[in-house]
Amino acid sequence: MPEDLRNRVDRQPTVAGLSEADLLARIFPRLRMEDSHTINTVLGPGDDAAIVAAPDGKTVISIDTQVEDQDFRLLWPNGYRTTGFDVGWKAAAQNLSDINAMGARATSMVVSLTLPVDTPVSWVEDLADGLTAGIRELGATQCSVAGGDLGRGREISVTVAVLGTLDGGRPVLRSGAQPGDILALAGTVGHAAAGLALLESDVAVDTLAPAERVFVDLQSRPRPPLDAGPAARAAGATAMLDISDGLLRDGGRLAAASNAGVALDPAALARLAGLLAPAAELLGADAEAWVLGGGEDHGLLATFPAGVQLPPGFTAIGSIHALGTDEGPGVLTARRPGDTGGWDHFAH
Amino acid sequence: MPEDLRNRVDRQPTVAGLSEADLLARIFPRLRMEDSHTINTVLGPGDDAAIVAAPDGKTVISIDTQVEDQDFRLLWPNGYRTTGFDVGWKAAAQNLSDINAMGARATSMVVSLTLPVDTPVSWVEDLADGLTAGIRELGATQCSVAGGDLGRGREISVTVAVLGTLDGGRPVLRSGAQPGDILALAGTVGHAAAGLALLESDVAVDTLAPAERVFVDLQSRPRPPLDAGPAARAAGATAMLDISDGLLRDGGRLAAASNAGVALDPAALARLAGLLAPAAELLGADAEAWVLGGGEDHGLLATFPAGVQLPPGFTAIGSIHALGTDEGPGVLTARRPGDTGGWDHFAH
Repeated sequence: MPEDLRNRVDRQPTVAGLSEADLLARIFPRLRMEDSHTINTVLGPGDDAAIVAAPDGKTVISIDTQVEDQDFRLLWPNGYRTTGFDVGWKAAAQNLSDINAMGARATSMVVSLTLPVDTPVSWVEDLADGLTAGIRELGATQCSVAGGDLGRGREISVTVAVLGTLDGGRPVLRSGAQPGDILALAGTVGHAAAGLALLESDVAVDTLAPAERVFVDLQSRPRPPLDAGPAARAAGATAMLDISDGLLRDGGRLAAASNAGVALDPAALARLAGLLAPAAELLGADAEAWVLGGGEDHGLLATFPAGVQLPPGFTAIGSIHALGTDEGPGVLTARRPGDTGGWDHFAH
Repeated sequence: MPEDLRNRVDRQPTVAGLSEADLLARIFPRLRMEDSHTINTVLGPGDDAAIVAAPDGKTVISIDTQVEDQDFRLLWPNGYRTTGFDVGWKAAAQNLSDINAMGARATSMVVSLTLPVDTPVSWVEDLADGLTAGIRELGATQCSVAGGDLGRGREISVTVAVLGTLDGGRPVLRSGAQPGDILALAGTVGHAAAGLALLESDVAVDTLAPAERVFVDLQSRPRPPLDAGPAARAAGATAMLDISDGLLRDGGRLAAASNAGVALDPAALARLAGLLAPAAELLGADAEAWVLGGGEDHGLLATFPAGVQLPPGFTAIGSIHALGTDEGPGVLTARRPGDTGGWDHFAH
């Protein structure tokens, strides 16, 4: 925890003063959900493991970690302080998005928290509230937290493993795109990148207008379109993934897995970039670069056979083509042919 | 990573030089298992989520994290260097143990790795080898790694979420112990604590005799008895949990969940302490304290109705009794009545 935040919270009770059991007793009540959310929880927290229903005999499973100073800062250059609520919400959102991207629905989460001993108890309670609110407000109507683990570390780290069900259907993989398919987007792209740029700028967060502030909010609490994944599967999507590392990089993954070419429609890109104008103008930044390289909105990128009516929430942004001679799988844009930049945890 | 280890590995390639995709390409081949292990993996690594079979319509799920300098040190006072293999093995072992403790069999794991940029690539490869070897050698014959996540951090952190199946049976909970039940142990207890004491001592690791070294090995690469959990369930165990935080503390949890008293047999404790004599004599330590307070062997503590033939691997170490007037749930020993010490991540 940065020194200034450590000082700021000096008078607050920290986790150092609590046993693991005491801390769990503070967290569990905040993870309670309505019955509809716990319908898949056969056995909840309190034993060596939890038990979750898998009605069709299969469990979809993904895992994702957020680490302090890598995935979020407690204090940003523009003065914004990341709350426990933000971190909890984001942990829920990015994991729910992985289930969404298979065309599945989330059934349960387990959470492993690593906390420095000087973490305020209130920050951890706030994280539990954010997890619960994220699950509920994003519409994961049959998902709840079934269990977890607590431990110490030098930096805050939050790992969520999320379980889901395909309701007897087939998953939508990255590898099924066919030449002639429509490429479509659900949710936003570039908003979280614009928010990140604002957080890292010297424009004080409390001076932002609502039309600018919205991007900071999307970076802190992403809103993956959880209805869109199962809807895309039902509509016959041939391939799908969530955009966590940018349109170029994730589009490149879809192209590589499907051994095809992805072409982005310049008019669609211009329209998506236009949505980012308030932040781009404030910072003198390139909105299209946010659209192409920005992840963390957790929108869905999916392909559909030509002629299919796109499900609600999806708009066409390009197409799939067969690879030409000497053409490798990749993403073509008017701007940067073949470039599949974007976010990589190690090489940047 | 401690400065001296950082220097030691200065000439080795680190993860800083690799993209996430490159690093995954180094890890995946080392996670490959025989077909029998992957029988439950419907969809393995490479998409947004994995898919795992849940043949009886239920998935047992647990999650656990190991953090550098909390759960292991890269360099111990006695000179032992924790290998990536050790950390991978231990991550597998302690998670497989949670599934075992429900009376279930593991079907799959997903792994989230947080790595400092100066981590040698060879150390990460070694970790993957240790995970694979742990799963295989501990006898999790239908379990493999189905997916994962990689990210950066200031300290090494390894989180595993493990999935399992009860094969249509009922789980063995902590809460089912009945007065008159036999209390039984499978696997070892106190060995890992003796190993920890040796690691933290000034007795150089390379001077240890095999009868002493065995405890260091058990601390570094625990060997939970994975056949014992399903066998206990089949034999009618009324309650069960794994001993991860010590016999007193975990016995106390069983007592509390079952609202009963646990009495440990002094003769059984003396016999368990006797097994630790080589390490206790070397360090001038109290072997019975290791038996009562030491976790991390990941043995199983289970209760069985009187008269039941204990399944292979279990030995009786005490009994369950109804609570007397003014008696709270807890563990009675000849030595320290009511004390339920042991390991707590925060309060110690």
